[in-house]
Amino acid sequence: MLIAIPLFERVTALDAVGPYEVLQRLPEAEVRFVGEQTGFVTTDNGMLRLGIDGTLDETPDPDVVIVPGGIGTRRLIPESPLVDWIRAVHPGTWWTTSVCTGSLVLAAAGLLDGMKATTYWAAYRELEALGAVPTEQRVVEHPEQRVITAAGVSSGIDMALRLAEHLTDRTTAEAMQLAIEYDPQPPFDAGAPSKASQEVMARIIEISRTRD
Amino acid sequence: MLIAIPLFERVTALDAVGPYEVLQRLPEAEVRFVGEQTGFVTTDNGMLRLGIDGTLDETPDPDVVIVPGGIGTRRLIPESPLVDWIRAVHPGTWWTTSVCTGSLVLAAAGLLDGMKATTYWAAYRELEALGAVPTEQRVVEHPEQRVITAAGVSSGIDMALRLAEHLTDRTTAEAMQLAIEYDPQPPFDAGAPSKASQEVMARIIEISRTRD
Repeated sequence: MLIAIPLFERVTALDAVGPYEVLQRLPEAEVRFVGEQTGFVTTDNGMLRLGIDGTLDETPDPDVVIVPGGIGTRRLIPESPLVDWIRAVHPGTWWTTSVCTGSLVLAAAGLLDGMKATTYWAAYRELEALGAVPTEQRVVEHPEQRVITAAGVSSGIDMALRLAEHLTDRTTAEAMQLAIEYDPQPPFDAGAPSKASQEVMARIIEISRTRD
Repeated sequence: MLIAIPLFERVTALDAVGPYEVLQRLPEAEVRFVGEQTGFVTTDNGMLRLGIDGTLDETPDPDVVIVPGGIGTRRLIPESPLVDWIRAVHPGTWWTTSVCTGSLVLAAAGLLDGMKATTYWAAYRELEALGAVPTEQRVVEHPEQRVITAAGVSSGIDMALRLAEHLTDRTTAEAMQLAIEYDPQPPFDAGAPSKASQEVMARIIEISRTRD
């Protein structure tokens, strides 16, 4: 089972690493980080480098695709080698998925036309402009189209657990949850715009003008 | 504010990337990935490469230290350049912390002697053998000693949110939670040994003989 995670300059690391950490442990899974060129990409803030193992061209037949988000997605839409690759490989995948603003790339590839989908909470309008119907659900599944989109950053972990169940079975997926000891106990409850105070909303706008 | 995250061969990626993703967004924070040598390390399964920005020697005065876990920690205890470095820098840090089996490294450095601490659920005995008192809490804080240990892998996100509050204020920490849209909705409830079925426990032992 080949799971391809495309990386690009200014990707958000946790979007990619959350699902990777869940799925790499599946029996017989191989996770391959792919990109326009092999080498390394630098994350959104420039603070972390992640390795690319193979090019998009070298990876024409992934079984699963997980497109992470990050401010770098904006340079990939509406057209880029990654968008072309998504279009080309999707007919052969079992699942084509996204985390955060990775859904903008799926939308640009035409995978979300007229469909409910999600993205980072600050990017609903951008997603809508690309033809999807944004919804506030954390994970949106379309089994018939074999497409899943997840909300911002950390939601990729929840999405990957669901994906693990689809790819294997419930017991194995629960074992993956235990393997990453995912028994979340956040000290606050401000993880969605509907739960955050006005003060928190103001603070995040102040802090993260260039982030998703 | 300099936040140093040591990396080493066979580190567990999410242990490092979860806290990084929360803390990199703090105003004026610089996250630096440090190691014995600059270059790259490969994660526990060999599937992902993470970049190291500076050596331990070049980083004598971090304000915050976060030691991730992974099977690679076993080669670092009881003595290694990283253990020496932890001993040397801890007196000057605001907080010295760990995720998963990173606590074995803190314990080897003598930071957890006789103290309650946590680690990955499968490593309690190893932690105890190094002088700490293992407890099943997800995040264990010792404000006086400026030490925090977190449980397995994904618990680093919960720990980092608490750390964000200590380093800034509650509003900023909540904004960081919103920035990573951390409103967890796991599809199952098997993220701790006490919650997992016997069948799930058997499956994980079968799958992950060499992982933490």
